[in-house]
Amino acid sequence: MRLLLLCLFMLSISSNAWSQERKRARDYGVKIGVLPTGKHNAITDVPGVKVGHTTLVQGEQVRTGVTAIIPHEGNVFQEKVPAAVYVGNGFGKLAGTTQVQELGNLETPILLTNTLSVGTGLNAVVDYVLQQPGNEEVRSVNAVVGETNDGYLNDIRGRHVTEAHVASAIQQAKTGAVAEGNVGAGTGTVCFGFKGGIGTASRALPQNMGGYTVGVLVQTNFGGVLQLDGVPIGEELGQYYFSQKIKDSADGSCMIVVATDAPVDARNLERMAKRAMMGLAKTGGIASNGSGDYVIAFSSNAALRIPYNSPAKTETVTLLRNDEMSPLFMATIEATEEAIVNSLFKAETMQGREQQVVEALPIEKVVKILKKHHALEL
Amino acid sequence: MRLLLLCLFMLSISSNAWSQERKRARDYGVKIGVLPTGKHNAITDVPGVKVGHTTLVQGEQVRTGVTAIIPHEGNVFQEKVPAAVYVGNGFGKLAGTTQVQELGNLETPILLTNTLSVGTGLNAVVDYVLQQPGNEEVRSVNAVVGETNDGYLNDIRGRHVTEAHVASAIQQAKTGAVAEGNVGAGTGTVCFGFKGGIGTASRALPQNMGGYTVGVLVQTNFGGVLQLDGVPIGEELGQYYFSQKIKDSADGSCMIVVATDAPVDARNLERMAKRAMMGLAKTGGIASNGSGDYVIAFSSNAALRIPYNSPAKTETVTLLRNDEMSPLFMATIEATEEAIVNSLFKAETMQGREQQVVEALPIEKVVKILKKHHALEL
Amino acid sequence: MRLLLLCLFMLSISSNAWSQERKRARDYGVKIGVLPTGKHNAITDVPGVKVGHTTLVQGEQVRTGVTAIIPHEGNVFQEKVPAAVYVGNGFGKLAGTTQVQELGNLETPILLTNTLSVGTGLNAVVDYVLQQPGNEEVRSVNAVVGETNDGYLNDIRGRHVTEAHVASAIQQAKTGAVAEGNVGAGTGTVCFGFKGGIGTASRALPQNMGGYTVGVLVQTNFGGVLQLDGVPIGEELGQYYFSQKIKDSADGSCMIVVATDAPVDARNLERMAKRAMMGLAKTGGIASNGSGDYVIAFSSNAALRIPYNSPAKTETVTLLRNDEMSPLFMATIEATEEAIVNSLFKAETMQGREQQVVEALPIEKVVKILKKHHALEL
Amino acid sequence: MRLLLLCLFMLSISSNAWSQERKRARDYGVKIGVLPTGKHNAITDVPGVKVGHTTLVQGEQVRTGVTAIIPHEGNVFQEKVPAAVYVGNGFGKLAGTTQVQELGNLETPILLTNTLSVGTGLNAVVDYVLQQPGNEEVRSVNAVVGETNDGYLNDIRGRHVTEAHVASAIQQAKTGAVAEGNVGAGTGTVCFGFKGGIGTASRALPQNMGGYTVGVLVQTNFGGVLQLDGVPIGEELGQYYFSQKIKDSADGSCMIVVATDAPVDARNLERMAKRAMMGLAKTGGIASNGSGDYVIAFSSNAALRIPYNSPAKTETVTLLRNDEMSPLFMATIEATEEAIVNSLFKAETMQGREQQVVEALPIEKVVKILKKHHALEL
Repeated sequence: MRLLLLCLFMLSISSNAWSQERKRARDYGVKIGVLPTGKHNAITDVPGVKVGHTTLVQGEQVRTGVTAIIPHEGNVFQEKVPAAVYVGNGFGKLAGTTQVQELGNLETPILLTNTLSVGTGLNAVVDYVLQQPGNEEVRSVNAVVGETNDGYLNDIRGRHVTEAHVASAIQQAKTGAVAEGNVGAGTGTVCFGFKGGIGTASRALPQNMGGYTVGVLVQTNFGGVLQLDGVPIGEELGQYYFSQKIKDSADGSCMIVVATDAPVDARNLERMAKRAMMGLAKTGGIASNGSGDYVIAFSSNAALRIPYNSPAKTETVTLLRNDEMSPLFMATIEATEEAIVNSLFKAETMQGREQQVVEALPIEKVVKILKKHHALEL
Repeated sequence: MRLLLLCLFMLSISSNAWSQERKRARDYGVKIGVLPTGKHNAITDVPGVKVGHTTLVQGEQVRTGVTAIIPHEGNVFQEKVPAAVYVGNGFGKLAGTTQVQELGNLETPILLTNTLSVGTGLNAVVDYVLQQPGNEEVRSVNAVVGETNDGYLNDIRGRHVTEAHVASAIQQAKTGAVAEGNVGAGTGTVCFGFKGGIGTASRALPQNMGGYTVGVLVQTNFGGVLQLDGVPIGEELGQYYFSQKIKDSADGSCMIVVATDAPVDARNLERMAKRAMMGLAKTGGIASNGSGDYVIAFSSNAALRIPYNSPAKTETVTLLRNDEMSPLFMATIEATEEAIVNSLFKAETMQGREQQVVEALPIEKVVKILKKHHALEL
Repeated sequence: MRLLLLCLFMLSISSNAWSQERKRARDYGVKIGVLPTGKHNAITDVPGVKVGHTTLVQGEQVRTGVTAIIPHEGNVFQEKVPAAVYVGNGFGKLAGTTQVQELGNLETPILLTNTLSVGTGLNAVVDYVLQQPGNEEVRSVNAVVGETNDGYLNDIRGRHVTEAHVASAIQQAKTGAVAEGNVGAGTGTVCFGFKGGIGTASRALPQNMGGYTVGVLVQTNFGGVLQLDGVPIGEELGQYYFSQKIKDSADGSCMIVVATDAPVDARNLERMAKRAMMGLAKTGGIASNGSGDYVIAFSSNAALRIPYNSPAKTETVTLLRNDEMSPLFMATIEATEEAIVNSLFKAETMQGREQQVVEALPIEKVVKILKKHHALEL
Repeated sequence: MRLLLLCLFMLSISSNAWSQERKRARDYGVKIGVLPTGKHNAITDVPGVKVGHTTLVQGEQVRTGVTAIIPHEGNVFQEKVPAAVYVGNGFGKLAGTTQVQELGNLETPILLTNTLSVGTGLNAVVDYVLQQPGNEEVRSVNAVVGETNDGYLNDIRGRHVTEAHVASAIQQAKTGAVAEGNVGAGTGTVCFGFKGGIGTASRALPQNMGGYTVGVLVQTNFGGVLQLDGVPIGEELGQYYFSQKIKDSADGSCMIVVATDAPVDARNLERMAKRAMMGLAKTGGIASNGSGDYVIAFSSNAALRIPYNSPAKTETVTLLRNDEMSPLFMATIEATEEAIVNSLFKAETMQGREQQVVEALPIEKVVKILKKHHALEL
């Protein structure tokens, strides 16, 4: 037992060391796609969007957490945002989908956590909304709470996420750079057999295409045959679905949140959401049977807010024509691919439940392979 | 205050009196459709299906509850049942939909409760599954928890449903006759401006059509222009959406659970689920904007159980051909219509939050109108 | 042979006689629902909407036709309208659905014909669009062509509809009263075992609900247990699915077109389309396995036209809030129910292929039954 | 004029020359994915599946054609196959989708042609089915006819495809190697700014995963940022959506047909169909706004044939469990990616309408780039 504690302590040190070293993919010269990134290359580049994490690393068994994405700075319930959900593969527990699809809007923060904590997430988001000033008469709340299964590293049956943890993630949400890797809902996740986690990225369209920003945040916990910017890392490392090293399945899940300030309604947001799965495909993900791959897309465009109550019977909105959507589709694909890649670059090796260890993506080796394939631009 | 207590006391007496008097629609001669009912004219006529309620009527403010529908007598997680979900109108919070749709099966009891208690319902169902003998290694549970909003009579913001209440509903679930009206998840609901609640009904197909049973259970909380077996009760009573008496909306919701022992897979169960909304339509429901109208359909057919783990890579199943589905569609429509009608006949007048009162369907008047329209067969 | 000709001749006379006598349901005192109708109680009450028929009754074998619904008076391809499709039961061949669903708009007239003539309908609509002035550069046309199967009375395998017939239906389209019964695409259809056909109806919302009009046109060819305004006509006449008289199935189909001038986009038009199936349900239809039940809904609102080409990247639109949709839902349900009923009242007895005869709804008997049930308001 | 003829003559020679030289991607050492191919690396590796083309290259204006995929060697209408459709992006005219989705089966050959010839395709397939021996009583046919828009090289408004051309494609369908590139429905298509066309590929699962085959055939006419096996060919050549060279859009479409002999029903075929879009994504396609990206998937497994008429009310089928689907998903992704790549390798430079020319993928340059990126395995 003491030995183990020592071991964990060392791991902790090494993790800290790693965390100083591990950089985002672009810092190594990986340049995914052809569009420029936003300022922080993060979902928070979309004006108004905030992200908060609660990371739970307790003892040997608890490796989980909560990530909250808040669509805008105001009272989201009173000023809903246009939104859509696309189900890439529905082996998952995302709550709140049908109301988003029916009404075309989102009225709460988006919560990500582990599979068995969705109920707690729901309760906490409902609490948050009921207690928010101005919501005293609210009696119906459609909380959107997603998950992936971190049960390999985390004692998921222990249900260690509390409503306080959820509240904390919401309260700590902020704009600016976003912590990635083993944080929040990504604390205990596994991706392509490596340590996964939270990742984010963004794209900024040229002004002649409207100058809009698309930001993506992912919680990666899935498998397949890893490709980094097209380079067959999984094959080169001999670690992929069907290979000797990975005996079991490619199962797992990926939660993807897409935000934009482009003036698009629910129908076109759903189309953007579908493209996020195309970004996932480019990393080598296969949306295996056991994967819960979901995309939630929303527009934080200030002119599209949908008031909860309104004396008016109509709303006047200015929306992009269908014909203008393709650049946003491409931005979504690129940002999703890069967000997933960032989650792998930033996540550190982790030991958890039953002393099981998931190794981080071996950056040194990976960089060599990328170089060999002329995939680095530095 | 004393006056109020007295008043409530009298209400209580009168309720008890009523509860002895109020019978199901068929007992008054209302005969909906052309198909015969099952033995109890209840969802429990489908072999293996059990129903349990927890009814919460506490003080002046709490009028809510939980209803559990259990698909079969075994361990549902280990032996899943083919299932489907259809969204009539998605202004609701039904959790668990996407996995049912993706995998075509149901692995937990179905829980119904109030809008703000879905999270608690989820947590409790997850607990139930994790603790069930044989599920020690389970780390992923797709709980199906639906709701309607009882916030007119119930202090819904008070979140009075606990996990223990949910567990109790599951534990008390039993076969045989099903309590209807102001019970379980129907305790505080309102339907067509009258007191709604839980209702159930069933249909038994003739042997030459397979002899299958279709059972339906509803939690009624919606509006429109009430028709009972086609008779315009809402208009005759001057109480309907758009009329003077009902100033506000027809909003509300209806959860519908459809069970059958017919050998049908998820695709044809989804088609049956769609027909349930046609039964709702025949009562005069309009699936208003604010309504969360959902149908969950499953087959309890013992030969179609889907093992959680299996050494076999394939399953051999015997399924009804598409061509044989129409009788099951008709049975679903009829049973849904009658289940809704039963909820109205059985629900008693209730006083709740802020001393608001919702009157029961005035059976005496209604019977007179039905007679006038030659709609009774006694 | 001569005998037969004589017989047909007499039938023709008798039909003409009948056609003078058979009136619409409302003329007999049938008043469906609680909302007022538009001026003509027809889909053409929606400003700009036109309907045209080509009726083919040739020799003993040909009983078919074409009906065209044109969304507005301009060039529909150049000025598309918001639109949606809902599939009640997809055993049908409606062409053009996926583009309407993806882009949220309709760019051609809607064509209805028989099952095996959809290809001809497509070709003819494409011709029409390519040749329309202003469309010289058009190279992609999404024609929406629906059908029901008139193969009982019509020699459907003979493929008697030509492109010229389709063109003629489009050219003859006009506003004002709409011919119903055995006309156009309803010439050879069968409904509830009686002669079906084309029917139409409309509803006009009160000014405080916006004053919008909802118009519906149906091509009825389906079955079930007929109810007229709730009255069990099918049971009283002993003619219904499952009864002795109707030995075979309730199969068949129903095409439903919903038009409105309300300012609603594709998402809310889809919701309206779903309600049309609820109107069908109220007539006793069961959407049997073999039924192709489709709803196409569009808004002819002049401010919502979507230009094919536009220098602008955005469109500014004023749309009804979700909260205002319920009256439109109810109007859709009522108008659909009445349109179906009108098709039955107006369709005359017809003899067709292999001397098979389908009797018209026996109005005299039906009126007696309606009276007995106090369902007439005259 | 003479000059032009000369020019075309030379082009023709050069094309013939090229056609001898241009090989499939794998022949150059491009090895996509980790799974082995089937014998012909073609959709026809799936037992029973046949492919036929009619190629129309007439004068200077006509560059179009028809491709037919026949699911099995018998009478497909009398013995339907399990099938599903997935809509990647619905800006297209694929006919027959809703019935496939509702009933879960396919009852005709799948036809691919140009956008404005879908009506002719429908008519021809209906003719084919009506005239097939054994179908004398058939009165309803759900023809599945897809398209992409070849209007850049082809005089698409001229409607040059006739019913005879369609019939010919069906009649010529055969097993074995499949012609690719500028043939059939791919004659006039454009992909990533290069000449597109028909492509095909297959994957054979290891015996311990069932030994099933997945075959894919594509009609490529879409855009984005081309990647070949992950290598950024589009960027290296400076030809991609957003680049200077391609001024206009990435619009276009991709029809994808997925066949397998694995015992899977419609629900799991739909899941496979969704994965085909992931294969498209890996080539750099973005499913732009104007793209009609559709996947039709079917199982030719002999034990799953669905008889049109049957005395039996049930069918007994042996189906793969959900848990076994992931290898089939991966096979679908790989085969789709390679089929698209093959269409580019095999399609030759073509001059068409208004003397417009679309250059073939410059294989020599491409091979150099692939070498540089260590992407060839020879």
